[in-house]
Parts: sequence; C-alpha cells; structure tokens
Amino acid sequence: MAASTPIPPTIYLGTFVHSKSLSELEICDQGAIGVDSAGVIKFVERDVVRVEDVKAKHWEWKDAEVVRVEDGFFFPGFIDTHTHASQHANTGLFGKTTLLSWLSTYTFPMEASLESLTKALTIYTNFVSRTLSHGTTTCAYYGTIHRFSTNLLADICLERGQRALVGRVCMDTDLSPEYYRDTSVESAIEESAASIDYIRSIDPEGAIVRPIITPRFAPSCSASCLAALGALAQETAAHIQTHISENKPEIELVASLFPASTSYADVYDTAGLLTPRTILAHAVHLTPAEVQLVAARGAKISHCPASNTALTSGCAPVRDLLNAGIAVGLGTDVSGGFSPSILEECRQAIWVSRFVAMASSDAAKLSTEEALYLATRGGAAVVGLESKVGGFDVGMEFDAQMVRLGSVSEGGDQKGEFEAGPVDVFGFETTDEKVQKWVYSGDDRNTVAVWVRGRLVHRTGRYVK
Amino acid sequence: MAASTPIPPTIYLGTFVHSKSLSELEICDQGAIGVDSAGVIKFVERDVVRVEDVKAKHWEWKDAEVVRVEDGFFFPGFIDTHTHASQHANTGLFGKTTLLSWLSTYTFPMEASLESLTKALTIYTNFVSRTLSHGTTTCAYYGTIHRFSTNLLADICLERGQRALVGRVCMDTDLSPEYYRDTSVESAIEESAASIDYIRSIDPEGAIVRPIITPRFAPSCSASCLAALGALAQETAAHIQTHISENKPEIELVASLFPASTSYADVYDTAGLLTPRTILAHAVHLTPAEVQLVAARGAKISHCPASNTALTSGCAPVRDLLNAGIAVGLGTDVSGGFSPSILEECRQAIWVSRFVAMASSDAAKLSTEEALYLATRGGAAVVGLESKVGGFDVGMEFDAQMVRLGSVSEGGDQKGEFEAGPVDVFGFETTDEKVQKWVYSGDDRNTVAVWVRGRLVHRTGRYVK
Repeated sequence: MAASTPIPPTIYLGTFVHSKSLSELEICDQGAIGVDSAGVIKFVERDVVRVEDVKAKHWEWKDAEVVRVEDGFFFPGFIDTHTHASQHANTGLFGKTTLLSWLSTYTFPMEASLESLTKALTIYTNFVSRTLSHGTTTCAYYGTIHRFSTNLLADICLERGQRALVGRVCMDTDLSPEYYRDTSVESAIEESAASIDYIRSIDPEGAIVRPIITPRFAPSCSASCLAALGALAQETAAHIQTHISENKPEIELVASLFPASTSYADVYDTAGLLTPRTILAHAVHLTPAEVQLVAARGAKISHCPASNTALTSGCAPVRDLLNAGIAVGLGTDVSGGFSPSILEECRQAIWVSRFVAMASSDAAKLSTEEALYLATRGGAAVVGLESKVGGFDVGMEFDAQMVRLGSVSEGGDQKGEFEAGPVDVFGFETTDEKVQKWVYSGDDRNTVAVWVRGRLVHRTGRYVK
Repeated sequence: MAASTPIPPTIYLGTFVHSKSLSELEICDQGAIGVDSAGVIKFVERDVVRVEDVKAKHWEWKDAEVVRVEDGFFFPGFIDTHTHASQHANTGLFGKTTLLSWLSTYTFPMEASLESLTKALTIYTNFVSRTLSHGTTTCAYYGTIHRFSTNLLADICLERGQRALVGRVCMDTDLSPEYYRDTSVESAIEESAASIDYIRSIDPEGAIVRPIITPRFAPSCSASCLAALGALAQETAAHIQTHISENKPEIELVASLFPASTSYADVYDTAGLLTPRTILAHAVHLTPAEVQLVAARGAKISHCPASNTALTSGCAPVRDLLNAGIAVGLGTDVSGGFSPSILEECRQAIWVSRFVAMASSDAAKLSTEEALYLATRGGAAVVGLESKVGGFDVGMEFDAQMVRLGSVSEGGDQKGEFEAGPVDVFGFETTDEKVQKWVYSGDDRNTVAVWVRGRLVHRTGRYVK
C-alpha cells in the first residue's frame, strides 16, 4: 500500500453508486469501472452480465485485475473540506464551553504542544489513519503554527496516499496566548511561505498534497497579517482556508476589531482573501449581503454541522447558500466536531437541515441524496478538484470506497459480535434502501477498502476482492 | 450465558462510574463492587488498594470471583424506555416521510409480516442481540398485534437474560390498514390479556420480563378500546405504554377524533391510562396544562430525540418536563429512531437540547452528566425499577456494562483496523475526560461485556476478566 507501489490496471465490478446531481443518485447494480495504471477512469459500463463481456469490448484490458464487490457497493471517496488534525486528541472534549472559551480551555494548549515532532507524529499518523478508515480520500487540514509539524503532516498524507490540503496556521493577535502565536507579521508570512515551498517540493504537481494558506480566523489575525496573507495567496496561487461567522459573540468581536469593515465577509474581502480558491468554514450566520459577496467572489463554504451543534453555534442555512449558487461541502471540524467521519457528518447535515425546517419551511430539509452529494461532488468543488474526483465519470481519477453491509441469517444473529458493523440487511432491501441504511446507521466498519487515484490506501479484514 | 447458569459471587474491581444525581456523576477510580449469587450488590468499596484488603474486610467473599476492568470502567446498564422491536428491519428507512406517511409506507407492512413466527424469530433475536451489544440491560418493547409473536419476543428476552417490558400492540380504528388491526374491542382485550397471562406464566415474579399494555396511540384506538385497556390495566396492575404529542398533524388528528377531550393527554386520562405505571413516548408538544396533568398523575415520559429529529417531529423541551417533576428516560424508538444505541440517544438528547437552547435559553441545555442520568436512573424510574437498577448502590441488582477504550501507541496507529473501536485515548486524559470521549464518540465496540442481575449476557472478543 506504499505510495510508490505500481498500480495494475483494474476493473471494479459490481454495484456502484454516485451522485448524478445535487438531488439524484445513480445506482448501477451491474457496473464495471476500468481504472488504468495512472488511477484514471477509462471506461464505465452498465448492465454488465459477465466480466468477459467487458474484457471483450475493451480488449486491451484482458489482463486487468478484477475487484468485485459482492454484497455492497462502490461509492466515491468522501471529501472532508475542513478539519483540524492538530485537535484530534481532544475529540469528544467540550465540557460546557462554546467557541471562544473552548479555544482557550482545550484547543490552544493542545495545538501548542504539537511543536514536538514526536507528539505530532503520533497524533497526525493516527488521525490520517482514522480519516482514511472512514472513507475520506481528500481532506483539508489545519495543522498548527509550527512549520515543521505541519510539513510532517503533509509528509504523512503523501506517504499514506491521502489527498490533502495542508495548512500552517497563522495568528498574530493577543486573542491567542503568548505561548502560541506568530510573533510578527513578517515571521508569520515567512513561516507560511516556507511551508508552502516545502509541500510543493515533496509533490511538485500537487497530485496528492497541496499547501493551503490558513489564517485561523479574523479575530486572531491583525489586518496587516490578513493583507499580507492575501498578497501571499495571489503570489503563490495557493488555496486559502479560514473560518467565518461561526457564532454570534465571535461576529460581535470581529465587528469591534475591524470597525472599518462593513461585515465579517468584508474583512476577508478587503484583505484579498475572498477568492475562488477560498474555503470558508461554518458560515452559520452570514447576512444576505455577505452571502451575495461570497457568491460573487466564487468562494466556497465548508458546512460543519456536528461542530455547530456541539458548540451550540447555530444552524447554517445550507439551502439558502446552495440557492445563492455557492459551492458547499461538508467538514468534520474535529475537535469542535466530535467525529472524523463524513458519513456521520452527512447525518448531522440532515438533522441540522430539519431543525432549520422546523423553524422556517420544509424546503430547508436536505435529502439523503443531497447530503451524499455535499460529501462527494460538493466537497470536490470546494477544494477545487471537481473535474478529478467526487464521482465515477470517465476521465476522473478513481477515489473510492468499498462499502459492505452485514447480512442477517435466518434465526437472527445470536453471537452478538457483529463484526460486519452496525447495518443489518435482511434480504428484502433494494440497493437504494441499502444505501439509506448505510447512511443512517453505517460506520467505519462498513468501509472495508479505500482507494485514492486507483491506489489501495486502506483496507480492513472484511475486504475481499 | 444461559439464563439458568448459576452465578458465582463476584467482586467487580476497578474504576466505576454512575450517576449520583441528575447533574452529578460519581467517578470512583479504585472501586470494588460485591455482587452475590442472586445478582444483588452487597457492598461497594472505594479507595481500594488491593483486592486482598476487600476480601479481608468481607471475609465471606474470600472465594469470590474477581472481574477487573483494566483500561476502562464499569457503567450501569442502559435503559431503553421506548422502542419497537418489530420495526428493527426497517432501521434507517425513512424516505421523505413524516410520522403519518411513514406509518403507512414503512411501518404497517413490516409489522403485519411478523405474524410469521419464523420471521419474528429472526428479527427479534437479532434485535435483542443488538440492544444487548449496545449495553441495554432493560428495554420497553413494542411488539405487534400478534399475540404469539409478541410472546416469542418475551421468550427471547427471558432466554437471553435481558430485562424487558413486552407489549402486544392494540389498535382497532381504520387509521391502521384492514390487513393489520384488531377486529373488535373484545378481541383486542382478549388477545392482550392472553399475552399478559403468558408473559406472567414464564416469569411469575417479573424478575426479567413483564407484560405492558400497549395502545399504539390515540388515533389508532377507539375511545371504547382505550377505556377497556384502562380497565385491563387496573385489573392486572400491568404497566402501560403509548405515544403522545409526537408531531403537529397527529395532535390535530387527535383533536378531531376526540372532540370531547380537552387535550391529547386528557384522552388518555379519561380512559384511565394516565397512571404512575404509564410510559408516554415523545411528549414533544405538550401544553403547560398537559405537563401539569401528566405530572399530577405520576405518568412518565420517554424522550426519543433521534426519532423526533429524523421524522422532523420537533424538539421535546426536556428541561421543562424535568422541572415539572416528571420522570424522564431515553428511548431509541427504532425505527423512527435510526439506532438501537442509548449511547447515541444520549448524544441526540444533548444535541436536541442545544437546539431548544438556541431558540430559547441556555438553561435548556442538557449536560453530559444529565444525559447519562436519563439513560440510567431516569430510565429506571420510567420503567418502575428505580429501586433495583440504574446505579451501583448497595441493595440494587447488578445491571452493568464494562466499557473499554482504545489506546494510541507512540507513533500512532498505522494499521487502520481500530478493533478497539472509535475512541482514541492518548494517555493524558482524566477518567472524567475518558467518559466524555466515550459519550461523544463511543459505540458498541466499547461495550465489551454486559451483565443483568449479575449474569453475563453479552461479551465481545475484547472482554477479559
């Protein structure tokens, strides 16, 4: 599974499921997806009766490997558009905090400790293993302010073969404690630029890992720091990630810190940070004018419902954001979010949309299909990879997971071990219903294998070809 | 593990955690709990240095077995105060329905099919295995209208050693389809009485299984059926379970069906069904007068947040119910709810309370401690077992789960199998923080053994004494 092992041309045979559009899933029960040694999807066949017929049609694939899914389906790899690898060890710890108190109680001390490369190695390795095990094939990571730890995170992603945007965090104001902040704008830019250079040096084409400029969020950056990061983004053509409008005290804080700005979004726009390569996490409380501005600049939004609920931040109005034409993906936002799973995040997005619906109109509800779209094609658009990943289209690269479900034998399972995971299939279910069962009760046990660019990057004991 | 195997006197050694009050957990890092061969807790020691000291103090326990938990803790078994065993096979299937359309699309056809004892055996066996695997030691089950299938569910619970209230469903109006309803009030009462008699015949003391009178909910029962069930409850002194005020169209339906009643709660009160032995599921939209009436009658409430969210029913105001002095427990309400796990239900209760808080005041928020109380002592009060289970008090019976968490070794886990489950412990965590991590990211993999009344009723490969 090492990143350098050659990939044999492979035909993935059996049921595949992916998004055709925001509201529509394609379920193909007898599919065949041909992936070449570069990891590119060269053909997609439907209504396949026998693999021999596929090989007869595509004669140059006669020696290709075949990977069959017998009692499940292939699904595109998930895309996590916002998470903090550096907060992984705090997962599940909130106490009674909300955003600003949570930062000082739990987050800053933990992040500061990752100056230690030994500690960073443990936490980052474990977190990349965790996200891969949940089927996440692309991840936009916050690191810490430490250049070398952040670079180590990029090394780990490249070695493990997980697509990643890896960002060294910038923050220079006294919202951050003295023991954990950039000491000047100059040093912030220097360290960030050096991290960008390093990440580009280990993967010059950005095929797997790419750098991302990461001002933590407006309150922790001075106006001059933000402006310098905007200039760096323009100079390097790198992606940008930050937070916006997560909770109300934060928004008031931004208004008081940037009195000349007309809105939170305007703070970023003034600094040149609102671009088509920008990922804005949260966007819970944007005003209509801000939504228009974000849409006009082509910036993208990472919806992080688990985190927004856990920290009582609010319910992001995803339907309104989508209606404004903004690209929206899902983010686990560990450890504000309590799970590294995008499947859990799909559920949370659905629940949050129901709370929005209870307070406004039924139109706010996200369907299962829509949540899965946000988790794949939506996320791909947010990280600028919509032409490469998110679905099984000819010409795309094969980022995928094999999903297997548990089947209940006559008489019921009495052992009580349930190694096959939490989903029970009784035999009456259509493929569509199997997908629903997976979305509402599945977990990492159901993701038995994961591929990035055609390379097997994770598998469990239940993976069989 | 058969229900008839004798239980040796056993000392449970190591960390235990349980609720002291609604808002307070007791965490005892060096505990010893002595459980006799009847499953009763005879002593609880704290600050234990060596098991020999415990045996010296309690010299008659010198030959007792010792079960140690090394890297986790003992926690009281969970109590599920409302779930439908008969809907287990539909878990995760909602489509785009809400309550009333969901009943006719998914629920009635599935329940009707359980007239087949073969099918009932498979589904009920699997569901009891599932609930046990999630640490549920007591469960209030809805069966179906079929007496023999319902009796089979009671047999399975008794055989597996899970405490259960098992109810044959009554419904005689044309809200239910012709193929699945009681044909008359007389036959409804006759079948229900026969099921009560059967369940009492297999467990005369009700030590493990007890019958429960189960009018589905007001719209599916005629006034005379409800009144006859009220009389049956008085005659048999059996428990009662039903649904109340789950969603708004349902409430309007009840108002139109029972024009003489002043409220939904009044419908049940008029029929003699609002008693201290009554479990009311949902109670999302009760009026203040109904809350007063429920409190005055001493009836209990099963809070089912996962179901209420999944079906967009609403957010039950749990804080108000608690403040009114009503006993509240948690219910998974499968398959309106999407998980048989009370741990998941704790999280859902916390999330729903945050949505209530966003719309009203911070006082609505449930803490982790409060959710765990509802899952154990709160639930015990709802099913009338508060003097027997829910905590580790001398004189109570030992219903418990052994919780083990995963530990991350230096360098991070690179295998990506994560057999120990979803919780990562890095070594810095206090026991309180381990409990928090378990609540927010744990699952059935962390429940490695389960006891009811001192009897081991479930274990996984990670259980070691």
